[in-house]
Amino acid sequence: MKIAILPGDGIGPEIMAQAVKVLNVLGEQFDMETADVGGAGYAAHGHPLPPATLALAKSADAVLFGAVGDFKYDSLERSLRPEQAILGLRKELGLFANLRPAILYPELAGASTLKPEVVSGLDILIIRELTGDVYFGKPRGVRECPDGPFKGEREGFDTMRYAEPEIRRIAHVAFQAAQKRGKRVTSVDKANVLETFQFWRDIVTDVHKEYPDIELDHMYVDNAAMQLVRAPKKFDVMVTGNLFGDILSDCAAMLTGSIGMLPSASLDASNKGLYEPSHGSAPDIAGKGIANPLATILSAAMMLRFSFGKTEQADRIENAVKKVLAQGLRTGDIFEAGTTRVGTEEMGNAVVKAL
Amino acid sequence: MKIAILPGDGIGPEIMAQAVKVLNVLGEQFDMETADVGGAGYAAHGHPLPPATLALAKSADAVLFGAVGDFKYDSLERSLRPEQAILGLRKELGLFANLRPAILYPELAGASTLKPEVVSGLDILIIRELTGDVYFGKPRGVRECPDGPFKGEREGFDTMRYAEPEIRRIAHVAFQAAQKRGKRVTSVDKANVLETFQFWRDIVTDVHKEYPDIELDHMYVDNAAMQLVRAPKKFDVMVTGNLFGDILSDCAAMLTGSIGMLPSASLDASNKGLYEPSHGSAPDIAGKGIANPLATILSAAMMLRFSFGKTEQADRIENAVKKVLAQGLRTGDIFEAGTTRVGTEEMGNAVVKAL
Ligand SMILES: CC(C)[C@H](C(=O)O)[C@@H](O)C(=O)O
Ligand SMILES: CC(C)[C@H](C(=O)O)[C@@H](O)C(=O)O
Repeated sequence: MKIAILPGDGIGPEIMAQAVKVLNVLGEQFDMETADVGGAGYAAHGHPLPPATLALAKSADAVLFGAVGDFKYDSLERSLRPEQAILGLRKELGLFANLRPAILYPELAGASTLKPEVVSGLDILIIRELTGDVYFGKPRGVRECPDGPFKGEREGFDTMRYAEPEIRRIAHVAFQAAQKRGKRVTSVDKANVLETFQFWRDIVTDVHKEYPDIELDHMYVDNAAMQLVRAPKKFDVMVTGNLFGDILSDCAAMLTGSIGMLPSASLDASNKGLYEPSHGSAPDIAGKGIANPLATILSAAMMLRFSFGKTEQADRIENAVKKVLAQGLRTGDIFEAGTTRVGTEEMGNAVVKAL
Repeated sequence: MKIAILPGDGIGPEIMAQAVKVLNVLGEQFDMETADVGGAGYAAHGHPLPPATLALAKSADAVLFGAVGDFKYDSLERSLRPEQAILGLRKELGLFANLRPAILYPELAGASTLKPEVVSGLDILIIRELTGDVYFGKPRGVRECPDGPFKGEREGFDTMRYAEPEIRRIAHVAFQAAQKRGKRVTSVDKANVLETFQFWRDIVTDVHKEYPDIELDHMYVDNAAMQLVRAPKKFDVMVTGNLFGDILSDCAAMLTGSIGMLPSASLDASNKGLYEPSHGSAPDIAGKGIANPLATILSAAMMLRFSFGKTEQADRIENAVKKVLAQGLRTGDIFEAGTTRVGTEEMGNAVVKAL
């Protein structure tokens, strides 16, 4: 069980240290190796995804990722900016299936900006395709506009595209995930406007024939954004493309009000995966010892479950996290009157103790 | 002042009748002519945007639009479906600037799924570019995948594109709108991933030089979706592309919980416009006389303001709407205990009386 540990920037190293501590007390044999990524990769090796880091990630059975990005790197040209590391890892490792649970722990219902009755008990799984769509489609660039009313003017352009096998495999992931949950899948598209997503809808409908036990419905992305705000508990599994998934998964995460609690997994065809918290690198609070390490710790649990098949150990970690919440321990981001405010390390230690 | 009246499908005719009634008591001379559009256009003339309807819309000074769409037309091929009418009108009339206010009337704060302190007094203006982007970009279609790992497979594809003049003109609309409001513009893009939107950001930044009185910030679309849920009152004017605007404007509308109250305007370069409620055709309640006509009535007010320069008449209508709300009159969609439930026509009559 070789794990590439990529702490990254901002609060990345602090929260990663807690996840590593948790992994170390499980009584399993992990081979963990650490490398620089993001701004830290650029600072030390001149590239956000240094060759040695990519090689390590490729050779490992799973990648545990902190977060990348810092104000310091904002003025770099795009190909050198920290977030290129994450795009590069997804593409190079073939991590096409991004699983993002949006779960609201009952103890944290107050943290949401939504009324408690609308969100308490929320448990959605958003499955976002991660290596296709307009994110990677070519051709793309800035050119002289070739036709239409603005012919001859400069224009920026990108290509949105999805091939049939790309849609099929992510649809299978969604239907199989639904079989282990509420047995309902909502496929989100924009079939009324986009050829790519009419095609998406046709293929998802076809794959659905293999899953008669699952209820499938199709929803336009604008309506999905509305329904997430109006009645998010109606969803079970949502599956969508890379761009819509980027927007909707962040929206769903924010519904919980506690994005510091939400892990994510990005998987390839054989369940090798990259695991990372859903939140960012929060450079404004880096080094202060106040960041919430729970999303990273829960990402480690997802790793045990999906990449290593260690369901029991994953359950142990998730239960330990529930226990510290029940004990009233809170980092600043989820603190409320009547609970006990703790720092990053205390929170990590409390999880270790609960194990 | 020639107005094309296009009631459309579902609740369209009922709500339009109330808006027409309101226009008729203002003491102005309007030349109103009605035509079929959407499913009604298809049913009567075999096309959602019949030639006579398009000709009327082109010859009019403004278009007042109800809503289109009905279950009955779901199985038609895409080019004949009701929503093609709205895409066709936007493109044919050059309506590139979509203005969608998301306003929460204090009396209706309870209708939101968000906590009152998060949304009460909300007043955002979303400006969505409406004739470009991946909505209309060519080439598009289903083809054999020409390259990459899925070469030879079928793929759906579309072209995302924005030419410089398209971005410039919508940026001007946003900055000028902000001058009449809170003097802040948030431009929403995905410059970290898309060439189209790095170009967008560069051009918006350049146009901003002409508006030193306006504060401009740039935000990624995923973050914008989160901030709309987290702290929507921080926004003043938001400007974005066609696809992101489709998603974010519906999300923002739903924050208010009273989408039956929200009008919209779609303008061309000389303030000719199409005005329509932000909600849909609600075929499930069509013909029952219970739909909320206020968004359509407020759309008529926007028409008076933007296309006819009749600021005073627009104010009169908006004040009349505030008055009926203060009187406690509510259609079913915004009804709460302690208020008086009224139907579509009673609501229209109440606005007329308040005038
Ligand atoms: C950093 C950025 C490129 C990335 C994305 O858009 O995919 C991020 O927003 C995410 O969701 O992981
Ligand atoms: C009906 C559809 C084509 C349309 C759009 O996507 O623009 C609608 O969602 C809107 O926002 O007016």
